[in-house]
Amino acid sequence: MTKNLKITLLGGVEEVGKNLTIFEYADTMIIVDVGMSFPDNEVLPGVEYIIPNFSYILERKDKLKAIFLTHGHEDHIGGMPVLLKDVDVPVYGSNIALGFLENKLTRNKTKKKTAKFHIVDENTKPIKIGPFTVEFIRVTHSIPGAFSLWIKTPKGGVFFTGDFKIDHTPVDSKPIELSRIAEIGKEGVLLLMSDSTNANKPGYSLSELEVGKNLSSIFSDKSNDRITVATFASNVHRIQQIYDCAVKSGRKVALMGRSLINNVELAVTLKELKINPKNLIDLSEAAKMPLDRVCIIATGSQGEPRSALSKMSAGDSAPLKIGENDTVILSARSIPGNEKTIYKMINGLSSLGADVIYQTLYNVHCSGHAYQEELKLMMALTNPTYFVPIHGEVRHMLQHERIAVSMGMHKKNIFIPTLGSSFEISKKGFDNKGNVPCDSVYMIGDTESETDEIVQRRMIAEDGVAVISITIDNIGLPKGNINIVTKGITLSNSVISDVASSLLQFFEDGNVLGMTTEEIEVEIIKFTKRRFRNLIRRSPFIIPIIQKEEKNIYAN
Amino acid sequence: MTKNLKITLLGGVEEVGKNLTIFEYADTMIIVDVGMSFPDNEVLPGVEYIIPNFSYILERKDKLKAIFLTHGHEDHIGGMPVLLKDVDVPVYGSNIALGFLENKLTRNKTKKKTAKFHIVDENTKPIKIGPFTVEFIRVTHSIPGAFSLWIKTPKGGVFFTGDFKIDHTPVDSKPIELSRIAEIGKEGVLLLMSDSTNANKPGYSLSELEVGKNLSSIFSDKSNDRITVATFASNVHRIQQIYDCAVKSGRKVALMGRSLINNVELAVTLKELKINPKNLIDLSEAAKMPLDRVCIIATGSQGEPRSALSKMSAGDSAPLKIGENDTVILSARSIPGNEKTIYKMINGLSSLGADVIYQTLYNVHCSGHAYQEELKLMMALTNPTYFVPIHGEVRHMLQHERIAVSMGMHKKNIFIPTLGSSFEISKKGFDNKGNVPCDSVYMIGDTESETDEIVQRRMIAEDGVAVISITIDNIGLPKGNINIVTKGITLSNSVISDVASSLLQFFEDGNVLGMTTEEIEVEIIKFTKRRFRNLIRRSPFIIPIIQKEEKNIYAN
Repeated sequence: MTKNLKITLLGGVEEVGKNLTIFEYADTMIIVDVGMSFPDNEVLPGVEYIIPNFSYILERKDKLKAIFLTHGHEDHIGGMPVLLKDVDVPVYGSNIALGFLENKLTRNKTKKKTAKFHIVDENTKPIKIGPFTVEFIRVTHSIPGAFSLWIKTPKGGVFFTGDFKIDHTPVDSKPIELSRIAEIGKEGVLLLMSDSTNANKPGYSLSELEVGKNLSSIFSDKSNDRITVATFASNVHRIQQIYDCAVKSGRKVALMGRSLINNVELAVTLKELKINPKNLIDLSEAAKMPLDRVCIIATGSQGEPRSALSKMSAGDSAPLKIGENDTVILSARSIPGNEKTIYKMINGLSSLGADVIYQTLYNVHCSGHAYQEELKLMMALTNPTYFVPIHGEVRHMLQHERIAVSMGMHKKNIFIPTLGSSFEISKKGFDNKGNVPCDSVYMIGDTESETDEIVQRRMIAEDGVAVISITIDNIGLPKGNINIVTKGITLSNSVISDVASSLLQFFEDGNVLGMTTEEIEVEIIKFTKRRFRNLIRRSPFIIPIIQKEEKNIYAN
Repeated sequence: MTKNLKITLLGGVEEVGKNLTIFEYADTMIIVDVGMSFPDNEVLPGVEYIIPNFSYILERKDKLKAIFLTHGHEDHIGGMPVLLKDVDVPVYGSNIALGFLENKLTRNKTKKKTAKFHIVDENTKPIKIGPFTVEFIRVTHSIPGAFSLWIKTPKGGVFFTGDFKIDHTPVDSKPIELSRIAEIGKEGVLLLMSDSTNANKPGYSLSELEVGKNLSSIFSDKSNDRITVATFASNVHRIQQIYDCAVKSGRKVALMGRSLINNVELAVTLKELKINPKNLIDLSEAAKMPLDRVCIIATGSQGEPRSALSKMSAGDSAPLKIGENDTVILSARSIPGNEKTIYKMINGLSSLGADVIYQTLYNVHCSGHAYQEELKLMMALTNPTYFVPIHGEVRHMLQHERIAVSMGMHKKNIFIPTLGSSFEISKKGFDNKGNVPCDSVYMIGDTESETDEIVQRRMIAEDGVAVISITIDNIGLPKGNINIVTKGITLSNSVISDVASSLLQFFEDGNVLGMTTEEIEVEIIKFTKRRFRNLIRRSPFIIPIIQKEEKNIYAN
């Protein structure tokens, strides 16, 4: 067993989402984050979420000693319910991260609450797992309980930022531990692995407090309106600020959306959210109150068709009817790919008379990820020998590399990983070990959906489907007629009878004599696809159904 | 027959795309623009394009005397091939608009070149069609040959802007005819109908000339690289500027993309594009040239998977292999909904080593639609009594209304149309006539795709399909086994045999005795869907196939 520090990226590079990083040394393996990502439903119809291929981990299951979670966002914990079906090791994370995870596990019924969950924070003393020592360093992000990890190994220390921004005025007055990071930089960092999400954004990210000020001024301007604010259910600090604006302006607050209600309940229990229960009301109560006495905090900022906000924008009156005295603030970014549904919702709300305020018009949202100047500060403080940009698409990671180079780092001290990259690192530098299996696993509920199934679904989605059924005798001659049923495509009777009769002729001509059922199916598909294309310039997806009828060939 | 001026909007309001406006007076009807729009393929799988429902027009076909095209973009001419199958009237438009339309007709083989095409420009004297007199007023836009229409009627004049921006330094030195518009404003405009696309963008749009300057500075900076510029195939002025930059820096130019080659050919013939053939080379030749001697102008700016640029970004070496000395400029906007494919292409090109320059990083594109200050100028010059914002989503039209109100127009003098809105207008004001049929028609090639077909395709795309075939005798009892074939979903043998055997039992219990085939199909769908849901918590789309076998019930 060679004693090298090996790092493998099963997710979160060349993509945004499903972050999963593996650290190995001798016979010990630890994992940092087990995330999920969301599919593009045009390409992956029906897929609900995507997780990394866990085979590399499961083949080395005995080496796995612990899982560390940097924070509680889905792209960092969303794969845990599936992984925990197969592994049973201690899990370290913040109160919020483990709280969200437990809620997920309860919902999925995949695993009982485990005694192996360990809540940590910046005061937890470094955790020793075999040759690794892991310290949690508090950072600022768009969720409370977010941490960088300072991972010491016999080969040197790795500073793993996780998702972070440098917010000097966070809502909970718990800023990023810059002085501890500077101290670590002085101790000596072998390798920095840093969040690249916003590497192409110049300057500094907006502070959460600035968003609060802007929200507050909208609450003043719109003092006669009912105000609804949509945001991400996990953005606890944003929820705090909206709540504060509402109470300050004499409003009661109603929560709309199951995930929001669950998260608020948890955050209040964990004391990460300061809410007086007497200021909370039900939606049904809110619907009856004078408009200027109510604030609704809602999910559905992405225009998700099933969200209450989206339904209200379409004119559904339940739970609340939107009208001329409604102001709706979308205090969230547009996740790429959601633009059309978001604009559809904005249009719906606008045509009902609401004033809709969203990010391209006002600063009612800020990113939780460091911009270029913050990335430089992180690099300056940690002062690493080597650098690996993570958490981003290729264009983000390459931009992050340019930032490092602009600060004087040598290109040879930077490794740009690809998805599945495995490398060893020591004072001598990188040793690229190639790539491990890292394909995406497409999930529907808790079952995998195979790629070929998805391809079939997509083909049918584009072209429709034709079921072609035929009964043949045991030498391959047809009995009775051929029946064609289509779904998702309407064909004229003349096209159907042309294809049916020409296929019948094809069988009667003895073209499939002696073939197996599978071979005959292939022939039916080939023949009918060609025929459809000739007739209507396209072909539905063909499903052949062959019934064989026994016939005594010795009878006369 | 009442003598009122009636205006009907079959498309282009509450949406971006498929612009179509109808003007009627007494027994005469004229149409302005017959556009198409593009589908969201997640919602409308397989649909290629969308056109307005023409039934309102076809029911009044005898009244239709002429079609006017403001310019040659697809959202203004794309529905013409379908409409021209049913109507045969004079069509007025610019050289480019009619040239693009003729190319479309030739490609679609839907109609021969018609003698009824009339090329017009700003010098054409007003065209008299019954009670209407239509004058073409030159405007600036992202395509040459773009016009506003000054439509005079016995009830007063309508100024219809079409798509426009106010560019004082257009590439072809043919600025918008502001003085003629001012003159018309003095004559007296009853109604202004104005482009709302960018009504929520403050300030002025960038001039096309500024884009040219920025492109030129990139050509200087990247003098050692091969430069590929992707843009819209119809943006003739942009193509001119890219060509000019290339030639000025001593490069030959290759064109990539069929639509681009066709459009360049047409624009050169029409003298809208000044290109010296000796500077054009084939792609195969370009591939062999020193990199710094070549510029490629390409389509595929939206990351369309079938475009050459997209294939090259995926590492395909044909027609050109992208490497470290390639600069790729995306001189186009991201059409909402295309962000993911565009970023995928940018990531691919970046990881091959190319430097990719796109709009969020540099001003390498400008909009062809007026920003707020330009809209105000249009409103000030035309000085209309009444105003109808058109060409935009609800949020754009409402913002355009706010602009008009901010300039002193009374809200009651503004009408915000909905899709299909029909209204009469006179000096007394608007008389809302309600809405006419205006549903979207979903096209695949030149055939319509029914909504229920699309819904079926989308259901199969999400859940897969199961074909359940059974042979029954003529009273409804099963003969032989039940056969289940699935596509797009993989089921375990135990699930399949459970469903098959329980359905068989359902039949054997006599539950479908005496039913028609259609009734039995419904029963099969109900029974199996419920069973699948119980077993696997979801159900594929069910296609029942019933074969009835004659049985002589009088036999013993």
